[in-house]
Order: sequence, then structure tokens, then C-alpha cells
Amino acid sequence: MNPTTARTTVGIIGGGPAGLLLARLLHRAGVDSVVLERCDRAYVEQRQRAGILEQATVDVLREVGAGERMDHEGLVHHGIELRFDGRAHRIDFPGLACGRSVMVYAQTEVVKDLIALQLAQGGPLLFEAEVSRVTGTDTDSPVIHYRHEGQDRTLACDAVVGCDGFHGVARNVFDGPRVFERTYPYSWLGILADAPPSYDELIYAHSERGFALASMRTPTVSRLYLQVPNGTDPASWSDGQIWDELDFRVATKMNRGAIMQKSVLPMRSFVSEPMRSGSLYLAGDAAHIVPPTGAKGLNLAITDVVVLARALAHRQATGETALLDSYSADSLRRVWRAEHFSYFMTSTLHTAPDQSPFETRLQLAQLDRIASSPHAAAELAENYTGLPLRP
Amino acid sequence: MNPTTARTTVGIIGGGPAGLLLARLLHRAGVDSVVLERCDRAYVEQRQRAGILEQATVDVLREVGAGERMDHEGLVHHGIELRFDGRAHRIDFPGLACGRSVMVYAQTEVVKDLIALQLAQGGPLLFEAEVSRVTGTDTDSPVIHYRHEGQDRTLACDAVVGCDGFHGVARNVFDGPRVFERTYPYSWLGILADAPPSYDELIYAHSERGFALASMRTPTVSRLYLQVPNGTDPASWSDGQIWDELDFRVATKMNRGAIMQKSVLPMRSFVSEPMRSGSLYLAGDAAHIVPPTGAKGLNLAITDVVVLARALAHRQATGETALLDSYSADSLRRVWRAEHFSYFMTSTLHTAPDQSPFETRLQLAQLDRIASSPHAAAELAENYTGLPLRP
Repeated sequence: MNPTTARTTVGIIGGGPAGLLLARLLHRAGVDSVVLERCDRAYVEQRQRAGILEQATVDVLREVGAGERMDHEGLVHHGIELRFDGRAHRIDFPGLACGRSVMVYAQTEVVKDLIALQLAQGGPLLFEAEVSRVTGTDTDSPVIHYRHEGQDRTLACDAVVGCDGFHGVARNVFDGPRVFERTYPYSWLGILADAPPSYDELIYAHSERGFALASMRTPTVSRLYLQVPNGTDPASWSDGQIWDELDFRVATKMNRGAIMQKSVLPMRSFVSEPMRSGSLYLAGDAAHIVPPTGAKGLNLAITDVVVLARALAHRQATGETALLDSYSADSLRRVWRAEHFSYFMTSTLHTAPDQSPFETRLQLAQLDRIASSPHAAAELAENYTGLPLRP
Repeated sequence: MNPTTARTTVGIIGGGPAGLLLARLLHRAGVDSVVLERCDRAYVEQRQRAGILEQATVDVLREVGAGERMDHEGLVHHGIELRFDGRAHRIDFPGLACGRSVMVYAQTEVVKDLIALQLAQGGPLLFEAEVSRVTGTDTDSPVIHYRHEGQDRTLACDAVVGCDGFHGVARNVFDGPRVFERTYPYSWLGILADAPPSYDELIYAHSERGFALASMRTPTVSRLYLQVPNGTDPASWSDGQIWDELDFRVATKMNRGAIMQKSVLPMRSFVSEPMRSGSLYLAGDAAHIVPPTGAKGLNLAITDVVVLARALAHRQATGETALLDSYSADSLRRVWRAEHFSYFMTSTLHTAPDQSPFETRLQLAQLDRIASSPHAAAELAENYTGLPLRP
């Protein structure tokens, strides 16, 4: 590439899992692309995010050649457990959702694998490339303006894809997008602990003191969450308090270990419509955010770029734009399904500060129904393991 | 009966469908009972209430011999239609809920049939019998105190059943019941119109101006509802405005006719726990109220008394109290299922005054899911047509 001006077919803003996977999918389809990532490699490779991969996400990572370490180190999960009202009920994924399962493998590991693959295969990937703006999105020749190694540069493209997350710049191009959002009246205190998981599968616990989630990253590292009030300072919870509260809410004696990381995650639902403006497309968190309760965020971003890669490749191969033209509407239908499921899981399992006893009983009635009705259980299992691309 | 003091096995307070059916079920099991109704017969036989009977309700009415006119005049419905977002989607009950259907037959007609049967079979039924209190419910000989024909009277019983509705006196006996409730930020404007129904089945319509329900009582009488703000004066809606608004929300040209009755119904969820205090049992609206959106209120009352009649008969036959002892807990599980379903239908289809665009999209995503997922559709169909007694 020319140091200050370059040209590619698809300019990808953001080197997270969505942007990196998109580059790999395009590469396999013979479509050139360049990935511009604002942060440095070390930062990108260590930020803790999601950890549950849907079946379709696992499949596409294998397909692009990024599945080797995942298949070696990832943990296939065939179900989750719901705990509520002194009861425990397992949701059997394969039995309820046509054989599908999920994989526990941290997003940060997915990113490492995709970066290694991208660099090994020579795909352009620039770290510390700060995009300032995108111009010409109302033409077939949009241009990304960015700064890299102390120089202002431009990247001319046929299409630009914003995979730059909720705080990214790509969405700024949209002239009056329709924004839908909800902030939740609680957050998650998340810890990474040097302790073997207490259970083989994830436990989603509804308790009178709020929600808890017992998850894991590896067979020796637990990932655990407690619902806490918004604005909670993670330092205000001692390690002992965290373990005691987990024991109470999950209603078990958890395996304890050194707490390696402690942070508070706010919870938000957000959708910006449409997901396309001329020759600029949005994918993943740049267009939509879900609360983490249903483990949909990463998977939704992956599905966005799978659909988009197909559409971009189809245009290059045939000149036809029908798939690109329907990208936003098709994706948004899937996005709203995931928004609804994430809202459902969140509002069914958490205790709002102003929650009435009536609302608590409705939650327990819903959970009781899931535990007793095959249809209600299948609804959860199908949504959790991931819906087919075209429902 | 002695004019001022009498004795029976089961004293039933309230001559609505629950109390009357309970008397018939007990009669068939050889258990004596007396029904005390506060109002006069003419009033009881004309008050407009619900109009959708679940399969199990239909079955039990036939079983006690009150099914003849219902089977002649009632309309069997095999589905309902959902309208939202410019779409129409039919829910096929038999296909989704193991062959079950519902019957359109007004509660007021059920009451007429049960009263006629009760009087024909000589079962004691006193109208204008105003119960003031129930004493001795902590013993095996509770006493109902009431006024009838200008005289204060008492009825000594082995058990008393309060089927006297939300405003009844039976619930007052409970010492500190646990009460759960929710009032909704909207009401229904209901009309009875001298017009053939525009459709063969009920239409539940979600619209940007709020909910509407197109229902019927007979092949020539329509029963129609519009969501309106709380506190709406029915007289503030002209007939023309009502028809125009129905046309808009149901997205069709409705058959019009003379509006014979117009009233505003508030919407409330309410549960009082437990449903038993010593020798006093509650059934129907005396213990729980649901908003009308899921058509559960009457059916829930019927199921309560079916369970209770069985338990009372079992005690008389065997001396065993196990079924009576579990009446409250068993019923409440079913009640909470219906509470949840009614809340679900209500909150999915209505527009709250402070509803955000995000919440509207969640409603549409849920309705889209029902229209595209067999499991989600079956959840609706199973709950609507009625769940088995012991889930």
C-alpha cells in the first residue's frame, strides 16, 4: 500500500472478531479488503469480552481455518442449568434444538486466532490506525480517512464496513438514524478467578438477592457474575463478599480461588436503523448492543458479517446487488429477535430495584413454565444456541 | 331449611358460574350444598362478562348436564388471528395444542343454564341473600351469617367456599393474606353491537394507536373492544368514532350495526395467597383476577371449583383430606401460569402511555416470533386453549 493513499475493495473499520472474520471470509471469496484497528495488538488480544459461541459461529470459524485451537481448547456445552425458587432445571440443547450445542471459548482467544490467521495469510491489518471519518458513502467510491504512524492517510474502497463497535466512528456517517435503546437498572460485577468451575455447564440463577451466573473460561478458570446496582465500584466488593454472595445466589458452595480480575459491566439494549447508508455498512456492536444475559452479542456480530461477506462476494462475482440491498432489513429482523431474547433472559432473571412482588411471581411462573413445558424450553434452547440465518 | 338456622355440608357464597358449577359438581358426587347469591336473579342473568370457554370448561359443563344449549348455540373456534405491523397471522389451535379448541358462549348464558339446572334439580339457591361474615373457619364447623327476606340467618357447614368475586366478603376472613397485584395503565372500551361479526374467529390487533379485539357473542352480535386511557368516559366516544377506530386498528372495514351497550373495563392482575384458611376455601375472582386479554378469568374459576369439588367429594367418600390440603398450592401454581399468560398477552398487544420505541419493537419481535416459530405459536395455543389440570 502507498503510505498515504491506498485502494481496496472493502475497507473494514475495526479489528475485533467481526472485522477480522469479515476479512477472512472476503479473502476466501477472492475479495480484497483492509482492516484498520484503532488500538494496538496487545490491547486487542487481552480485552475480556464474551465467551459463548453458537453452533453457527463455531462452524464459520472452522470454515475460515480459525477453528484448530478452539476445537482443542474450547468446551462444548450441551445445556445450561436454571436455578430458581430452590429448584434446579437443566435445559438440554441438542434434544430441544435439533442437535445444536454451544462452545465455551473466550472472544479474546477468537481474536488471537483470527489475527494470527490474518497476518499469516498476508491480509492487510493495520493496528493503531485511527479512523477520523468516512466520506463519499453516497457514491460507489467511499473513502476512509485515518491516521497511522503519525501520517494522515486515506483508503479508497468500493464499500466500507463499520465493525468499530458502539463507540466507533462509522455510525456517525448516518444522517438521522432511528435509534432504539434501553438501559437496565442494574449491572454485572464480573470476576475471572483462578478456580476450576464448580459445574460442567453454565448456571443461570434467579435469587431473592438478584441474578448470578456461574460460567467458565477454561477447566481451571471460572468466570462469574453477580447482579449489582448501577454505579457499583468493583473495589467495594471484597473477594470474600463476592464468594459468599455467589454461594448464596447460586445456592451452592462454589470452588474458590484467587480473583484475577474484577470489573463492573453496565447493561444496555441498543439498535440503530438502518444498518446501511449508501456504500457504508454497519455490523456488530456498531449497529446494535444487547445485554449479555443471552450471550448473543458476539454471535450476532459474527452472523452480520457472514451475511455481508456473502453479499459482497455475490456482487463481485455477478455484479448483482440484491443481497447487499436486503442486508439491512434481513439483518435487522435477526437483530430484533436477539434483542427480544436478550431482554427476555435479562428481565426474567434479574431483580429490578423497584420490582413488585407480583413481578417476582411472574418471573417464577415463567421459569416454572420453562421447566415444565417442552415448547417453552425449546424456545429458550433455540434462541440460545442460535437461530438459522433465514427464519 | 329452617328459616333462620340451617345446616349443609358445603356453604357456597356467590351464585356466579363458579359457585353454581360447584353446587352441581357436588350434587353429582352426593355432597349437599347451599348457594347464597347477593343479587337478584334478573341481575345475575344479564351481567355481561367473559365469553370464551376453554375445552375443559366446555367438557365439565357437558358433564354436569349444562351443555345442551351451549352445544346448540355456542360457536366452536379452532383458532385466533393476530394482526400487527401490517400482517395477519392465524394461530391454529388443534394443530398446535393437541386437538384442543375453544367455544364462544357468553358467561351470562352459562349462568342462565346453571341456574335453571340448579333450580330444576332442587339444589338450594337463594337470591338476595347477603352474607355479612363467616365465623368458625378455624374449626370443622364454620358458619355463614347472612340476611335474606328481611331476616338474619345462619348456615352451619363442614366447609365454606367463597365464590363471591373480587369485592366479596369471604376473603375478609383471611388473616393477613399475601396480596400480589398490578393495575394496567389502560382500559378496554367494550361494545355489544347488533352486527354480524366481520370474521369467523377472534382478531387480536396490535396497532400504533393501541390494542383492539374483534370478538362476537352470536352469529348476529359482535363484541368489540378498544384499548382506551384509564378513566375514559364511555359516553365520550361516539358510535362513529368507535367504528372508525376499530376499522383503523383491526385494519379492516368492520360490519357496523347499532351499539347496544358501551362500557369501560379497567384491567387488573390480582392474587391473594393462600386460597384456604381452615375450613374456608376461595375460588375464582375471590382469590385472583386477570386482565381479560387471554380470556382466562372464567376458565380459571371453573378449574378451581372442579379441583375443589373433587377434593370435597373425596373427603366425604373416604375421610381423607390430602386433596383438600393441597388445594391451595396446586391451584396457585395454575393461577400463576394464567396470571403470567394474561400479563404476556396484555403487555405484548397493548401500547402503554409511556412506551418507548424500543419496547414497541420488542412487541413486534415477539409477535414476529410467534408467527414464525412453531414452539412460540404452540406456547400461545396451549395457554389459550387451557392447560391440563396437573402440568
